[in-house]
Order: sequence, then C-alpha cells, then structure tokens
Amino acid sequence: MGRERRQRHGGGRRERRAGGQDAAVTKMAQPLHNLPVYELATEEGLELIHQTSMEILSEVGIAFLDDETQAILKENGVEVRDDIAYFDPAQVESLVAMAPSSFTQLARNPENNVVIGGDHLCFAPVYGPPFVHSLDRGRKEALLSDFQNFVRLAYLSPYIHHSGGTIVEPTDEPVESRHLDMVYSHIKYSDKAFMGSVTSAENAADSVRMAEILFGSDAIQESPALLSLINISSPRRLDDRMLGALKVYARARQALIITPFILSGAMAPVSVAGTLAQLNAEALAGIILTQMINPGTPVVYGSFQTNIDLQSGAPVFGSPESQLSLYVSAQMARRYKLPFRSGGMFASSKIPDAQAAYESVMVMLPAVMARVNFVLHAAGWLENGLAAGYEKFVLDCEILGMFHKFLQGLDLSPDALAMDSIRTVPPGGHHLGTPHTMEHFRTAFYRAELFDYNSAEQWQEEGSLDAAQRANKKYKQLLKDYEEPELDAAVDEELRAFMVRRKEVIRPEY
Amino acid sequence: MGRERRQRHGGGRRERRAGGQDAAVTKMAQPLHNLPVYELATEEGLELIHQTSMEILSEVGIAFLDDETQAILKENGVEVRDDIAYFDPAQVESLVAMAPSSFTQLARNPENNVVIGGDHLCFAPVYGPPFVHSLDRGRKEALLSDFQNFVRLAYLSPYIHHSGGTIVEPTDEPVESRHLDMVYSHIKYSDKAFMGSVTSAENAADSVRMAEILFGSDAIQESPALLSLINISSPRRLDDRMLGALKVYARARQALIITPFILSGAMAPVSVAGTLAQLNAEALAGIILTQMINPGTPVVYGSFQTNIDLQSGAPVFGSPESQLSLYVSAQMARRYKLPFRSGGMFASSKIPDAQAAYESVMVMLPAVMARVNFVLHAAGWLENGLAAGYEKFVLDCEILGMFHKFLQGLDLSPDALAMDSIRTVPPGGHHLGTPHTMEHFRTAFYRAELFDYNSAEQWQEEGSLDAAQRANKKYKQLLKDYEEPELDAAVDEELRAFMVRRKEVIRPEY
Repeated sequence: MGRERRQRHGGGRRERRAGGQDAAVTKMAQPLHNLPVYELATEEGLELIHQTSMEILSEVGIAFLDDETQAILKENGVEVRDDIAYFDPAQVESLVAMAPSSFTQLARNPENNVVIGGDHLCFAPVYGPPFVHSLDRGRKEALLSDFQNFVRLAYLSPYIHHSGGTIVEPTDEPVESRHLDMVYSHIKYSDKAFMGSVTSAENAADSVRMAEILFGSDAIQESPALLSLINISSPRRLDDRMLGALKVYARARQALIITPFILSGAMAPVSVAGTLAQLNAEALAGIILTQMINPGTPVVYGSFQTNIDLQSGAPVFGSPESQLSLYVSAQMARRYKLPFRSGGMFASSKIPDAQAAYESVMVMLPAVMARVNFVLHAAGWLENGLAAGYEKFVLDCEILGMFHKFLQGLDLSPDALAMDSIRTVPPGGHHLGTPHTMEHFRTAFYRAELFDYNSAEQWQEEGSLDAAQRANKKYKQLLKDYEEPELDAAVDEELRAFMVRRKEVIRPEY
Repeated sequence: MGRERRQRHGGGRRERRAGGQDAAVTKMAQPLHNLPVYELATEEGLELIHQTSMEILSEVGIAFLDDETQAILKENGVEVRDDIAYFDPAQVESLVAMAPSSFTQLARNPENNVVIGGDHLCFAPVYGPPFVHSLDRGRKEALLSDFQNFVRLAYLSPYIHHSGGTIVEPTDEPVESRHLDMVYSHIKYSDKAFMGSVTSAENAADSVRMAEILFGSDAIQESPALLSLINISSPRRLDDRMLGALKVYARARQALIITPFILSGAMAPVSVAGTLAQLNAEALAGIILTQMINPGTPVVYGSFQTNIDLQSGAPVFGSPESQLSLYVSAQMARRYKLPFRSGGMFASSKIPDAQAAYESVMVMLPAVMARVNFVLHAAGWLENGLAAGYEKFVLDCEILGMFHKFLQGLDLSPDALAMDSIRTVPPGGHHLGTPHTMEHFRTAFYRAELFDYNSAEQWQEEGSLDAAQRANKKYKQLLKDYEEPELDAAVDEELRAFMVRRKEVIRPEY
C-alpha cells in the first residue's frame, strides 16, 4: 500500500515538475568524494588508536544502563559486571564487519533518496536547539512554527539533501508528544529524507509507524526510511533512553548514527589521541550492539568532538585540536568500512557575525576534506547549538554550495586546458568575451548570492548591508515564496489520524 | 659593519628580554609542514599542466616590455620577436633547477629571521590597499600613520612572522618617495623581515641600499634581507616597471616572489586547468629570468588566482574554483622544488562581517593544507584588497594562531593516549581536574582571545558585542601598549640621512 502510494505520489511530482510549477526548488545531486582523500594519520597511528580503544573496550568497559540491553550483550557472550560491558576485540571486529559500508535512505520524493556512506556526501540541517535567532527578534524560544520554517528552508535549499530531525525543539508543544509534530512536519512540509525521534523507545516506535504509513512496512525493511541519532553519554555510557530508541530502530532495520558526544577536557582526556581512542571505543560499542540486535542494520560511525574552553568550560568550535580529531576519526571509520558522520557549521558565537563564520568553516572545510559522508548541523547552528539562526542557515547554505562545486574536482580535458583560447588572447589582452569564455561562463564559477561583490560605492548606495542583513531578506523571501510539496491526501489523513490517537494515549488530559 | 651592528643589537634585545621588559611581544616559531601533504592532482595531471605551459612558453610566448631584459633573454639564446619571448622547454627546466628550494631571509632581530620554502610556513600582512577600514572611522584613505600602525600590529602578533611590504599605500606621502618612508617604517617600528619596493628600478635600488645600511652589504649577499613582489600582468606580460625592479633585486641577490595575478575569465580562461597552465608558464618565465641574471637568486613561485564574479566583473575570493587552483599550483611549485606563495585572508566584503570571515577561511585553510610556504595578505585584507581593516587584522590573527597549533599535528605518545587517565574516570564521570588534565590543561587547547565562549546571558551582560566590536577594542589596546623595538642610533641616523638625500634628489621642489 505504502509503495503504491509512493509511486503514485512520485508520479504526481514528476508531472508537476514537467509542468514547471515548482521550478523554484532547484535540485542538486549529493556531491561525490572523487578527490583524493586526506590521510592525516599513518596506518601505524590508526592501529595504535585502534589497539588503545580495544583496551578500553576489553579492560575498562562501557556502561549500558538498560537491563534488556545487558541481557542481549550476555546472550552474545559479552561479560557484563555492574552495568559495565567488557568486549572481546575479535568479536568487536566481526560484528563491525556486519554493518553495510553504505545504504540508501528513502525520501518521500524518490529523487531525494540519499546515499549514506561510500563516496557520497549528505548535508542535513542543525539539530536540537531550544532557541531560534533572527536579526528581527533576537533570541527566542523555538516554536513549532519555527520548526516548520526551518523544514521549509531545508526543503528549498539545493545544497541541503536531508530534512534532518529535531531542527529546533518546538517548545510550545508538550514534550511528551512533540515528536509526533516534528515527524509529521518533516513529512508534510518537505519531501526530503528525515530522522526519527530518539527521546524514548515509544517515540522511536511512533516514528517507525509514521514511516510505515508513508512508505509501507515492506519498503522500509528493504531500505531505511529513518536515520536516527544515538548519542553516547561520554565517557563510556549509553543511557536507557538512547538504548530504548536504539533497540526499536535496530529491530525495525532503520538506520542509526552512533555518536560519542565529547568535549575533550570534560568527557575525555585533554589530549587528542586519548580522546580519539575513547571516541572510537564508544562508537564501536554502540555500533556492535546494533549488529547483535539485527545484523546488517545500517549504522553510521559518528564523531561529535571538540574541546572545552579553558576559561568558561564551554565548547570551542573549529579548534585546531578538533580538526586533527576530525581527520583521524574519518580515517578510523574508513578502517572499519563504515559511513562517517561529523562536521557541521558549528559556532560558539551567538549571532551570525565574523566569529560564527570563521568557526563554521574551520569545522566544515576539514570535514569535507576528511571525506565525511553525513553532516548533521550543516546549516543554522549558533551559540553552541542552543540556537538555530535564520540568517545563519541561509548563509551557511552558500558555503555548502561551494563544496558542491569544489568536489566536482579538476577537469583536465583539452577544452578545459583551453590552449586554443590561450593562443588567441595577446599579452595584456583579456579573456572576456572569447568564444571559450562565452561557452562556459554560466557554469564556470559558483556564485554566492548572499555575498556582496560590488564596489564599496555601490555597496554603500545599496544600504551598506552586512551579510547577516542580506541573509535576513533572503530567508524571508524564501519562506514567502515557499510552496508545499504535495502530499497524498490519504497518507496525510492516515498520519493525522495516527497522531490524534497517539496524543490521546500520551496525554489524555488534553 | 652591518653585521657588527646587528650582533650588537641582537645582544641588546636578548638582554631586554631577559629583563622581561618586552614580555608582551610573544614569539612563535614559524610552523612546520610535518603533516602529510594534500595532493589533489595526480602526477599525470601535473605533467599535463606542465606540458601545456611548456607549449605556451615555446609557442605562444611571454611579452617582456623592457629592452635590456630582451637583450638578456637573447644573450641566453631565447628567441624574442615583437617583445615576445619564446622559450625552449629544456632550458626552462635547467634554469628553474638553479633556484634554491628554500632560503633564509634576514630580520634585524636575528630571532625573527624567516625560512622561506621547504617545510616552513611564513605569514605576512596584507599588501597594497589604498584605504583602511575601522569601525570608528569607516573607510578612509590610508595614511603613513596607518602604515606604521599596521607595522606595529604585525610586530605585536605572535602569528605574523614577517612585516610585509606595502601594508597600505601611505597616500599622504608623495608617490615618488613614499617607498623610502615605507621601508624605513618597517625597520623602525618592527624588527621582523620586510619587503622591498617594486614600483621602479630606482625604488628597488633605494630598498637595497637601506637594507645594506641595516645589515651590511656582505651580509645581504649571503642571505637576502629583502623579499619583493613581482606581479606578472596576466595574460603573459611583464611590464618595464616590474622588470626594472626584478633586475635590481636579482643582481643584488635579493629574494623575489614571481606572481601571476590572475582573475580567471578576465586575465585567463574561465577554466581552472587553462588558468593553471597559463599561471605556470607565467611564473616560470619570471623565475627563469631571475636565474639568467643571477643564478641561484632566491625566488618564490607565486600564485594569486581567483575568478571574476559573473555579474560585477569583480574578483570572488574563497571560490571553489580558486581552491582547486591553489592546491594544484602548490603541487606545481613542489614539482619544480621551489618555495610556494599563495593564500591570504582574502575577502570581497567591505567590512569584517560573516562574509569576510567565510571568504577568508575558504582561502587560508586550503592554502595551509596545500603546504604553502609564504602567505602574503595573511591578515587584514578587505574589499578585494582595496582596504586594510584594523579589526579584520586582529581577527585574522586568531585564525593564524589556530593553524600554528593544528600544524603541530597528532601526538601519539603513551601520555597523549592517556590510558592511565581513561581508566580512572568512571562511566558518566568527567576528566575535569584529573592529574592528566591538570598537567596539560594550559597547553592542551588553543584559545582565540577575540572569540566569545560565554553563555548568551553573560555575553548580553557584557554588551552583546560582535566579533568586530571586540576586535576594535583589541587593536586599540595593542597600539596603546606597543613599545618600539630599539634600533641602533647610528643605523637610524644613517637611514634618515639617506632618506633626506634621496628625497632631495627625487623631489627637489620640496
């Protein structure tokens, strides 16, 4: 049923596109990592980190704060004492090898299906902020309307391939049921792939059920329709909430990102190498649990790592130490042939100023060079993740566009070498208007629409706007022009009916 | 004489430092490129670009608009017709091989001598803007006092290794003699290495004479005291002004940077590959001329390359196309075993906003990963190089500091792997205050002083300043606290007397 619907719906989309009705939604394919990869650590270095993390897994152990999980571990021969599991390195390696090196996540518009892993790069929006920031309103508690706005902005960006998950926390919705509103909003206001709720086993089950309504239960067994974010409570602990969600998703064969969340100096040693060993141990612990539950479950090796600030204890983004860690984490993921998640347009800055931009590129560019596969927080992040910025979101997307172009790499064809054209232009002449230039001009260069390239005089005439002020106009225009991607009426009805039933169970007092 | 003076002066510095009088001037050694290099193009790709540029050099040719230079070329067996020289590829390769792969440039404080080439990285300030920008005054014509201020800021930054050249154009000084004021200001207000004037042969000769007064004429023959910037007027042309300066410096065995200045789409084809071939041909043409004049003259392979904006015709900085070009140019320089100059904190933005920061890192981070040796414009650049920003300068320096830390690379010692410490911290515990953390805390993390890591509430209490506003306070404080590095009185007197004599000759009407 779901499959039939999807096809019907997909067909509808194609017809509308053919009719030119939503030409505004430009599609860009996921960039491919065809450029040489940057290998910062040597093979010996990676082996040393691997061995140290095996020592952590076998001798120091990882805490799993959930009885059922402990039973699963024991059934698989893992030693568990006082909530702490001690793993056999050989078993770790054989379980890790069961996870696929890449997989396709379904989107309700099949053209937006995303490949996670291999040579593919996928950008997803910011995740988790309880606040939003805009130039007009400053910092405000995030509402469901903000959530929906960011879903719309992600839908409209050609450089965001994924609708994400908890783009912001809709604080105006009851915490017990807001996961339903979030998943529904992803489905309703976008046609890109999205993430499931991880706040409890029940919420995960609701997310799976809604994906089944949308895609059909058979389809999502073949290819996951949800990619959900399991954070490890570093150091060395998975809590019952995260484990509850992990079990539901693994059993439903839905994809998971296992991410140690580490600020070195607090959740891990101050040293990069120690952090990497611990991060690797933690990521592998979560990953092998998914394979014990359901071998072959798609799972992503995640790294959210930076360090604390000496003075405030707050996280520091784009730090040189975190860049080193990012490159090597990516190498570890490749060592285990797993998709890699890291990066993000991270910033400690509260506003979309120079600090925010410096910080963001100092994470994202290394992530791209490290050959990241999935980037959560690829646009919109401000204030250590406490705020999603409207202006920041559209500014970040400009840079994501640049990565798309960069990753197309170097064309060394005779036409690109352009000897014929070089011969025709005399010394001191110019290439403006040559046949070669005219032929390639429109596609030769990426153009960041929000960046000002005018003369200072022209820029002053136009109001001396800074980048954030231009972004302010842009996001408002995008939201104004937004058109909802058509959702099959029967699916919509079924999703709404499911939500009503669930809300009655979850919070009968309403 | 010069050497004696320098030693005496050096001694004086050491004494003062021992006495703690200028502890404010923190020294940082030049970072070393010990990390693996990123090779974007294959060997075959580099060979193709090399061969194409040899075709340009031999068949299309390079114009040298100077009779004496044409005579030099002819003496060396080069065919010259209608101002255009046609080179023999074999001769090109043998001449390029005469240039050293690295050299040391003298600074008046020998501790600030810089190595250009090999594994060394050297950051120099912005060069050339006729305007300055500050939050207080906006955009103003640059004055000699601005020039001196930026020399002071570069002197005070631990992350700027070089005093640069025409940091800004001192528009309040007569154009005929301002080179004297600039060179003198570098000597007087800093003790770092500096660049010579390239605006004419005479001005270059003045620069050499002042370096001789400072260092002694024998000393600067052994190791260059000047590193000067020869731009090629792309496409394929060296003008008489640049050639005049080039000849003077090469004969005096002073170091040169040969830099094609290319905006693809205007001075070169719109394609990256064609641009690279032309850039390579132009750089090599200038480089081999230096070796014909004085074999062994230190010379740097320069690349100033980006593309024009489709709509305005203005340059676009940090573009994906220019990033590709930067990586491959660096590979070409390595192919010829030459020091490589590129990068810079480039921005089209008129102000130190998010655009400026995004753009700047999108050039500088690739430059560092490409293994650049010398970075002109490493701090302060705004508005396509038309303005030097005070706030931008100190903000950029924060990022330069991060590169210093990043390039220290990954410590994989047992202490850094920190297994003993990892064992002591229980699941869900923290590493704050562990012996390992306490031992390493102060040096573990780079801290950007101008970046705000406080909570939003604290940040608001402190005035909700953006990064540029904090930078405004910082640069003013630096200039307030600045203390001039002592210059030998006899040297100072000789330099001043030379300037008076030269100004009387250059502009007798004054």
